Amino acid sequence: MTKLISSINNPLIKQLYQLKEKSRERKNTGQFLIEGKRELSLAIKGGYRIKTLLFWPDLFSESEAKAMSQYGIDSIEISKEVFQKLAHRDTTEGVIAVVKVKTHQLEELTFQNKNPLILVAEAPEKPGNIGALLRTADAAHVDAVIIANPKSDLYNPNIIRSSVGCVFTNQIAMTSSNEAIRFLQTYNFNIFSAILQESEPYYEQDYTLPTAIVVGTESTGLNNEWREAATQNISIPMQGEIDSMNVSVAAGILIFEAKRQRNFK
Amino acid sequence: MTKLISSINNPLIKQLYQLKEKSRERKNTGQFLIEGKRELSLAIKGGYRIKTLLFWPDLFSESEAKAMSQYGIDSIEISKEVFQKLAHRDTTEGVIAVVKVKTHQLEELTFQNKNPLILVAEAPEKPGNIGALLRTADAAHVDAVIIANPKSDLYNPNIIRSSVGCVFTNQIAMTSSNEAIRFLQTYNFNIFSAILQESEPYYEQDYTLPTAIVVGTESTGLNNEWREAATQNISIPMQGEIDSMNVSVAAGILIFEAKRQRNFK
Repeated sequence: MTKLISSINNPLIKQLYQLKEKSRERKNTGQFLIEGKRELSLAIKGGYRIKTLLFWPDLFSESEAKAMSQYGIDSIEISKEVFQKLAHRDTTEGVIAVVKVKTHQLEELTFQNKNPLILVAEAPEKPGNIGALLRTADAAHVDAVIIANPKSDLYNPNIIRSSVGCVFTNQIAMTSSNEAIRFLQTYNFNIFSAILQESEPYYEQDYTLPTAIVVGTESTGLNNEWREAATQNISIPMQGEIDSMNVSVAAGILIFEAKRQRNFK
Repeated sequence: MTKLISSINNPLIKQLYQLKEKSRERKNTGQFLIEGKRELSLAIKGGYRIKTLLFWPDLFSESEAKAMSQYGIDSIEISKEVFQKLAHRDTTEGVIAVVKVKTHQLEELTFQNKNPLILVAEAPEKPGNIGALLRTADAAHVDAVIIANPKSDLYNPNIIRSSVGCVFTNQIAMTSSNEAIRFLQTYNFNIFSAILQESEPYYEQDYTLPTAIVVGTESTGLNNEWREAATQNISIPMQGEIDSMNVSVAAGILIFEAKRQRNFK
């Protein structure tokens, strides 16, 4: 028999609501919420451990919930009221999962590619930008994404949403800039820091060796550590009236120039 | 003597508030609001006609307002209350201008470049994406942007904001897809429509002749007109789990590949 929770005052539901709302709660419990079928299937494929599945049977059938039991996932039926309390999006699919976070340690990164391509984002802030960066990283199938000096946890519902699940498809490490630089230098990566000042045009560089492309925030750019650690500072020529681009657009241009040079292999 | 308006019930202020809020009001009056010093200066540089300047002297000095009179602009001092009523952003600079819209007719486009590069966006919806597209177009200094089958007017405050003023720095035409295609064919543009199906890799094409790069929305892609009118349908290889990119990132990758082939000239 499937368990049923119909009240938003149920203690578990109250706790899960905190998980949706509060980064601290996610950190303390090591859990977060995923909403939607595609996101859920990408997370399972990405090796995430689903602890509990909550489904509202009007939108997600009991047979679908049972199918999840092949992964050893417990499911709980919930009422419309509970579903709406926990759901983050307008258009949803009746399913919410409680999932164990990953640790995102630098040492856990593994590379199949002899000349890996890594995207580094320093201190990205806006969930929309982080989501777009992760979508670009997925499309380019980069070997890893490093988020240096992160400003938030990855499992913010807005980040999951704007990444359309690419939080789960990329190999992601989160660490300090200092540690990231040490790691990249230890493994002989060429570091290309995207910086306007004292830089060379991005399209004149060779990205076929082990390569890290590093982008900062739009407001402050990259910090000095990255300028100094760079094998080469690079820039995208700005030929208009404005001196900045959207960070995810800039990252897309740089990453896909690297991919082009590698013949998309 | 500078005129002063301190009440939000003043009829002019009520009318300007409608201008901020309602696309229909902008259409009916042929006017819109600009907020912020940079946006204002980009609009002046872009040939926009400023009709009235409203300033809150705590943030925008009377001498700054007087300096604007060299452009023949009338200025009105407003109270904090009025400023906050009309201002769209959190961080503002005490200045709001009433500006005449441009017509954005296809026939008004002029090209200095013998082999122009045009970005075409079909039916873009999200203000954030339109803003990022216009920033990319500015950075690449494309010869024109065509918005085909527009879903909204350009002077939505969210579009102006997310474009950081690049609404004013680009040459922009708004028209139907049908008219846009006829225009591009008449002037012998190569039309590259970004489409996943039956397309060639974008990096194998030649973008050095008169070139239009056409992108659609993320949800529905380009319509059939653009598929059929294309000199070549092109795609960005998707090597991850997800089959779509952010439209402004995709446009950035395509436009800057064209720029690279043109040696950024």
